[in-house]
Amino acid sequence: MIDAARSPWPDVAAHLAGPSGLAVLPFGALEQHGPHLPLSTDTLTAVELAHRLAGRLDAVLLPPVHYGDTWNNAGYPGTVSLAPGTVTAIAVDVGRAVSAAGGRALVVVNGDWGNRGPLYSAMRTLAADGIPAITLDHPGMAAAIEAVRESREAAPGLAHAEEVETSLVLAIDPAMVRTDRYVAEYPDFPTDFGTRPMQLHPFSASGVFGDPRTATAAKGETLLAATLQGCLDVLAGFVAGLPPR
Amino acid sequence: MIDAARSPWPDVAAHLAGPSGLAVLPFGALEQHGPHLPLSTDTLTAVELAHRLAGRLDAVLLPPVHYGDTWNNAGYPGTVSLAPGTVTAIAVDVGRAVSAAGGRALVVVNGDWGNRGPLYSAMRTLAADGIPAITLDHPGMAAAIEAVRESREAAPGLAHAEEVETSLVLAIDPAMVRTDRYVAEYPDFPTDFGTRPMQLHPFSASGVFGDPRTATAAKGETLLAATLQGCLDVLAGFVAGLPPR
Amino acid sequence: MIDAARSPWPDVAAHLAGPSGLAVLPFGALEQHGPHLPLSTDTLTAVELAHRLAGRLDAVLLPPVHYGDTWNNAGYPGTVSLAPGTVTAIAVDVGRAVSAAGGRALVVVNGDWGNRGPLYSAMRTLAADGIPAITLDHPGMAAAIEAVRESREAAPGLAHAEEVETSLVLAIDPAMVRTDRYVAEYPDFPTDFGTRPMQLHPFSASGVFGDPRTATAAKGETLLAATLQGCLDVLAGFVAGLPPR
Amino acid sequence: MIDAARSPWPDVAAHLAGPSGLAVLPFGALEQHGPHLPLSTDTLTAVELAHRLAGRLDAVLLPPVHYGDTWNNAGYPGTVSLAPGTVTAIAVDVGRAVSAAGGRALVVVNGDWGNRGPLYSAMRTLAADGIPAITLDHPGMAAAIEAVRESREAAPGLAHAEEVETSLVLAIDPAMVRTDRYVAEYPDFPTDFGTRPMQLHPFSASGVFGDPRTATAAKGETLLAATLQGCLDVLAGFVAGLPPR
Amino acid sequence: MIDAARSPWPDVAAHLAGPSGLAVLPFGALEQHGPHLPLSTDTLTAVELAHRLAGRLDAVLLPPVHYGDTWNNAGYPGTVSLAPGTVTAIAVDVGRAVSAAGGRALVVVNGDWGNRGPLYSAMRTLAADGIPAITLDHPGMAAAIEAVRESREAAPGLAHAEEVETSLVLAIDPAMVRTDRYVAEYPDFPTDFGTRPMQLHPFSASGVFGDPRTATAAKGETLLAATLQGCLDVLAGFVAGLPPR
Amino acid sequence: MIDAARSPWPDVAAHLAGPSGLAVLPFGALEQHGPHLPLSTDTLTAVELAHRLAGRLDAVLLPPVHYGDTWNNAGYPGTVSLAPGTVTAIAVDVGRAVSAAGGRALVVVNGDWGNRGPLYSAMRTLAADGIPAITLDHPGMAAAIEAVRESREAAPGLAHAEEVETSLVLAIDPAMVRTDRYVAEYPDFPTDFGTRPMQLHPFSASGVFGDPRTATAAKGETLLAATLQGCLDVLAGFVAGLPPR
Repeated sequence: MIDAARSPWPDVAAHLAGPSGLAVLPFGALEQHGPHLPLSTDTLTAVELAHRLAGRLDAVLLPPVHYGDTWNNAGYPGTVSLAPGTVTAIAVDVGRAVSAAGGRALVVVNGDWGNRGPLYSAMRTLAADGIPAITLDHPGMAAAIEAVRESREAAPGLAHAEEVETSLVLAIDPAMVRTDRYVAEYPDFPTDFGTRPMQLHPFSASGVFGDPRTATAAKGETLLAATLQGCLDVLAGFVAGLPPR
Repeated sequence: MIDAARSPWPDVAAHLAGPSGLAVLPFGALEQHGPHLPLSTDTLTAVELAHRLAGRLDAVLLPPVHYGDTWNNAGYPGTVSLAPGTVTAIAVDVGRAVSAAGGRALVVVNGDWGNRGPLYSAMRTLAADGIPAITLDHPGMAAAIEAVRESREAAPGLAHAEEVETSLVLAIDPAMVRTDRYVAEYPDFPTDFGTRPMQLHPFSASGVFGDPRTATAAKGETLLAATLQGCLDVLAGFVAGLPPR
Repeated sequence: MIDAARSPWPDVAAHLAGPSGLAVLPFGALEQHGPHLPLSTDTLTAVELAHRLAGRLDAVLLPPVHYGDTWNNAGYPGTVSLAPGTVTAIAVDVGRAVSAAGGRALVVVNGDWGNRGPLYSAMRTLAADGIPAITLDHPGMAAAIEAVRESREAAPGLAHAEEVETSLVLAIDPAMVRTDRYVAEYPDFPTDFGTRPMQLHPFSASGVFGDPRTATAAKGETLLAATLQGCLDVLAGFVAGLPPR
Repeated sequence: MIDAARSPWPDVAAHLAGPSGLAVLPFGALEQHGPHLPLSTDTLTAVELAHRLAGRLDAVLLPPVHYGDTWNNAGYPGTVSLAPGTVTAIAVDVGRAVSAAGGRALVVVNGDWGNRGPLYSAMRTLAADGIPAITLDHPGMAAAIEAVRESREAAPGLAHAEEVETSLVLAIDPAMVRTDRYVAEYPDFPTDFGTRPMQLHPFSASGVFGDPRTATAAKGETLLAATLQGCLDVLAGFVAGLPPR
Repeated sequence: MIDAARSPWPDVAAHLAGPSGLAVLPFGALEQHGPHLPLSTDTLTAVELAHRLAGRLDAVLLPPVHYGDTWNNAGYPGTVSLAPGTVTAIAVDVGRAVSAAGGRALVVVNGDWGNRGPLYSAMRTLAADGIPAITLDHPGMAAAIEAVRESREAAPGLAHAEEVETSLVLAIDPAMVRTDRYVAEYPDFPTDFGTRPMQLHPFSASGVFGDPRTATAAKGETLLAATLQGCLDVLAGFVAGLPPR
Repeated sequence: MIDAARSPWPDVAAHLAGPSGLAVLPFGALEQHGPHLPLSTDTLTAVELAHRLAGRLDAVLLPPVHYGDTWNNAGYPGTVSLAPGTVTAIAVDVGRAVSAAGGRALVVVNGDWGNRGPLYSAMRTLAADGIPAITLDHPGMAAAIEAVRESREAAPGLAHAEEVETSLVLAIDPAMVRTDRYVAEYPDFPTDFGTRPMQLHPFSASGVFGDPRTATAAKGETLLAATLQGCLDVLAGFVAGLPPR
């Protein structure tokens, strides 16, 4: 692999023209994650997975996008959200540039729930342009969560600033976790929660949705390893479907 | 100052509501800078200046945008350029989010020539929204360049991957400079160079425009210090014109 | 309830100003559903659910949108797909018009998988405008499918022109089902199926994904009843959160 | 002819590839038509004409668009207007899809005055794409109106919820006409009426512009027949100009 | 009246704030008008009418827009057409600027058939902004044409580079008319002519549609006077409806 | 050269197909220039330079655009500013039309500071379309100003309604200058003046930035001649780079 941000262009150009030809883009967010996790939590996770993935694929690692669509957390000051169209535009532009530079495909490693729709739109646009691209949204992580989680989830499929995300940051960079500030919150959601766009701050004063107290670095590492494997599993078919080099 | 990426939201929220209330956004690019400088050269410079500036202003330091409008260098593979409208949209979205989060003003530290027009458009949009914002494009650096430059410039005002930019990276992170790969190139420009949008790769095989061999970290530090002072000089009037806290 | 298409404006105006104040919009698609189901299958389902729902809520039933985003089925001629932005625009325009006309909220009953993202975008825009709106994407149907399905599903969560959808049309309008044309197809999907935008026609010649032969009208009625209840369950919280009349 | 909404895709695909290859799209509106005509009056007329036309041309009949640009009637609650750009987008998307599916040309049968400009824009876009398409705006109806009208028109060329439109609905579906609610209104228009965009509700409390009392189903049938013939006359040249099959 | 282009701002500012407060914008085109009339024919007519109108209304005369939407004449080189959206944008921007500058209303005098749709869209946008504006499309000219025309028209309502338009330029600036180059052309139109967007150059080699040989300056003056009166008649109601000064 | 506005299309078509094949577009503005210069000052200068340039290049002279982006002077009533995107759209449309009409390249002569960014965007778009185009922003004028200026400039590089611009209009059309209304103003600018979008009216009551009293027609002629030569110098390389005819 090669780290694009730290490398001169001829080295990256050679890598893009080489046998892998893949470029991996971590797409994060600057989003509240409770009083104990940093605003860049989603970016940290995306960068870690992208780094591991680029290593396994001998790919070009692109520098991360630190901002994403985090509209539903905008009520917690410090969150800095992009509009959905901006997220889409960034991914489309990067995909086109990678393709024009001789890259074989763009692999986006997404770290933020709110980016899903906008990144899907970007994949549609790139597909219409005939540019191979794929977004990876934590494949395999759900099963791994089932296996490691000790605390109760706040809502089905919801993992925000609780045991899961705290474990991930403990595994990636424990210095970023304010373990002295753990709080647990279990909101009382209305029946239409999760079915339509909704601000989250009325439901949790802290920004925690669940309980971080059972988090451990070991759980985080288990989740990362499982997700890396999930990514590789999905990519097997994707890469097999690319035009051969 | 506070580093937003590494901090939980309540700390950043408190800082945005505090006496400074400024948020500093480094806006870089992933752009070729010859065979000896990394693709992230413009981002490195913007982050360094933004970090120093945030320290002096007790501001919130936002994580950098690693991509910019580098259309004219797109002929060098490895360069990843955003469309102008995407650059504008990112800055507008960040400005709005900072304002909505209680920030007093957004200060963009721009590291890339191609971002100038798109960021100017963003400032126009934010101004129309009544959101205080300013972009700093290396104020004071031109005079400092005059004072330290020993090599000839390739064209009036052009500083790309030569003595000036190499000195900057030597001052910021010397490990990023491949000093063994220095080459000098002085293109033969047509009379309309610089008056209209033009690809650069037909003019320089290496991507260097000038001569990096006279670069030193000391010159880079002189340039950074002068530019920091230039930024502070410009901001004096800007901050004075903000509504008082 | 009142059927807007068949009613003069003063009657609809009175209903919108009345105690319910809800308007229900069925959003369908003109999409291939194999050789035995009509192109309007998704519209039929959406209209049927919307009609029952409007009855239960004493709402205004709006005429259906017969077209949706069915990009992934575009390889089967006869499918007529709208661009995602067009789907979004229609729902936004209808939401604004209902609100301007004195309606209390817009309830979109979605019948087409491809409309999910575009309708979510529309809900975001309406939310930003302060206009109450919600999209219902078959809440409760997944559990009911588990209960009635006898055939194997072609992929997790995939129900297209097979037992489930055929049962629905048999329950709604059996004359629309060409029972003499049943075929079963179980495609061999790559590992990245379902993770990125993909045309479906390379995977199934008929357009069937699964097996329609076990379909019955009784199963369809069970699914419809369960989904209607799912809709009512979700709406309970939504309506409770609306400003009182 | 074939009714796309009620047919499976292979049948429609075969028809689009056949000798006619035309697809007919009725474009209506949900617009006030006084206290006695339903909101879907324009859709009813467009569907009726499109149905007859598809029969004569052996064309594919597409399901109708029930919404149009009815901005000037927005002051009568119950009217649900699309933005002009949305009307344009729908027609463009359908034209592209029909062409991609092997259709020879799109024939739009327009039922709503406000759709004229937006549909003209759509035809411009399709023409630039090289996709044959035409919009029919009641050719031949004006002359037929002259022949059958007994009441006075409210303004030159204005026919809204009065004798003409009421006759049309009486001919198409008399159960939709509340004959007990006939009112006549003749507004006092300013000199700039008809020269610029203007809301209609300040001019007529009922939404009737003229007098419906002289309406008959026979007149409606005369108007429909004349308009069908007008459509066929216009289409003769259009179809003759298409590439031969 | 005051001619804005030739006046300093304080004089125009005073006039906009005065009792008339109207601003008149001539909107022309650079469009072929046969071998004998200049490309600016539509602009000449619009400017002449706007000048007379500004005199009668004591209005601010704005400098003309020399370009319009002349798509259907684009096959005659020399024609320079704007996209419809550009025409709309210009009129919207001017309307907003006039309003922000204290003007009471914008009166657009349109000289080009192709501008009608785009200017109507502009009026819609300005109306939604609450900015009074109106476009005048030769009111009263049709009746006057009936009275003076000696030659046959090429198609109902079509007047392009023939007796009518040549008379207008003879009345406005006879030096612009190449009387030695008169040719008459009567195209053989298909049945769908005039019902959909169509290029004109396949129908007339010269760009003349009709016969210019019976043109006279006296006829042109009659047409101008009648149209001026038509404009004043329409404006009577428009101005009466403006908020009083 | 040929003046397009005053010529029939066959003559312009022949010229566009001839050896020069260049089209020159003056792009002005309707912008305040103090109490003594007309609103069309920038247009006058652009037209004069474009006229001279077209003569030297045997080019097609296009009619001017009288409106530009003059946002920063919008506080002086009488200024009529276009949005930046409108300026861009006009230049793109004209460039495309000139190219489609057989022209070899578009040369825009810009007269207004605010048009620079928008016209640069237009040049980017045209370049992406493969359409040769260039904007000339007073090349060579700065040096000539240094040589002739007797008064002090209000800010570095700022020339607005003072000695320079007044001299230009005196040279072009002295009747347009109200010499009895000369006033000098030297604003007290904040430190961030010129670094971000800013309204000008808070800094100068008259709209003059500097001193017009030392203006002479002779100085204006010197400036025009120098700028013409600057334009020709820049164009030498541009024209040499065009495909040969």
